[in-house]
Amino acid sequence: MLGPLNHVAIAVPDLAAAAKQWKERFDAEVSEPQAEPDHGVTVVFVSLPNTKIELLEPLGENSPIASFLAKNPRGGIHHISIETGDLLPLRDRLVDQGVTITGTGEPRPGAHGNPVIFLHPKDFNGALVELEEV
Amino acid sequence: MLGPLNHVAIAVPDLAAAAKQWKERFDAEVSEPQAEPDHGVTVVFVSLPNTKIELLEPLGENSPIASFLAKNPRGGIHHISIETGDLLPLRDRLVDQGVTITGTGEPRPGAHGNPVIFLHPKDFNGALVELEEV
Repeated sequence: MLGPLNHVAIAVPDLAAAAKQWKERFDAEVSEPQAEPDHGVTVVFVSLPNTKIELLEPLGENSPIASFLAKNPRGGIHHISIETGDLLPLRDRLVDQGVTITGTGEPRPGAHGNPVIFLHPKDFNGALVELEEV
Repeated sequence: MLGPLNHVAIAVPDLAAAAKQWKERFDAEVSEPQAEPDHGVTVVFVSLPNTKIELLEPLGENSPIASFLAKNPRGGIHHISIETGDLLPLRDRLVDQGVTITGTGEPRPGAHGNPVIFLHPKDFNGALVELEEV
């Protein structure tokens, strides 16, 4: 039911500085910044052989990571994203088990254009988990 | 220089409950709990096709995750662990770049018996990063 870990997301206050750190410290392969206005973030991907790290900086008003950065001004690990099969039956199963889906509860297009949902951290050991239908 | 993501660690207040959640919600493959008295944690691994999630519960006095759980009583994403090659030259390079290594700064055996170091979150966007020589 659970596929590969697609990424670990780290929210950062300064995307250029964070991308530079990963590059200079580790010679890591770091993508160009990618603005995602629909998601309120600008994104840089750091490639690892088996998955990627997604560095997130707030973009525009009402960025979904603004409150996280207000609480954690230096940044921090924000969420993990796991690939799944069909999202709707899984979503229904999770809701039946008492899991809270953030927002409207309906899947919406994620950063890769695939449907995603987020499981609320309050039900899940404080960890924000994104599920992405692939 | 950076190898695969070995794991994402989630600190949890109740390991049995957290392991049950991953099992029941996702039919995930979940290991038996493994006590690591030298590291002050009991560990359960959740297998994903490309990496694993490590659920951590404090064990004994002075657990390294006790203060994290005091601040985050529900739990939360605690660190990421990335495999590397030789740790000492990388450690020296990072120190030269102003990175703080936690503890004594010397590699010590991690949960898999391999040498590990932790990079202090204050220099790294609030993210605790473990490097494991493999």
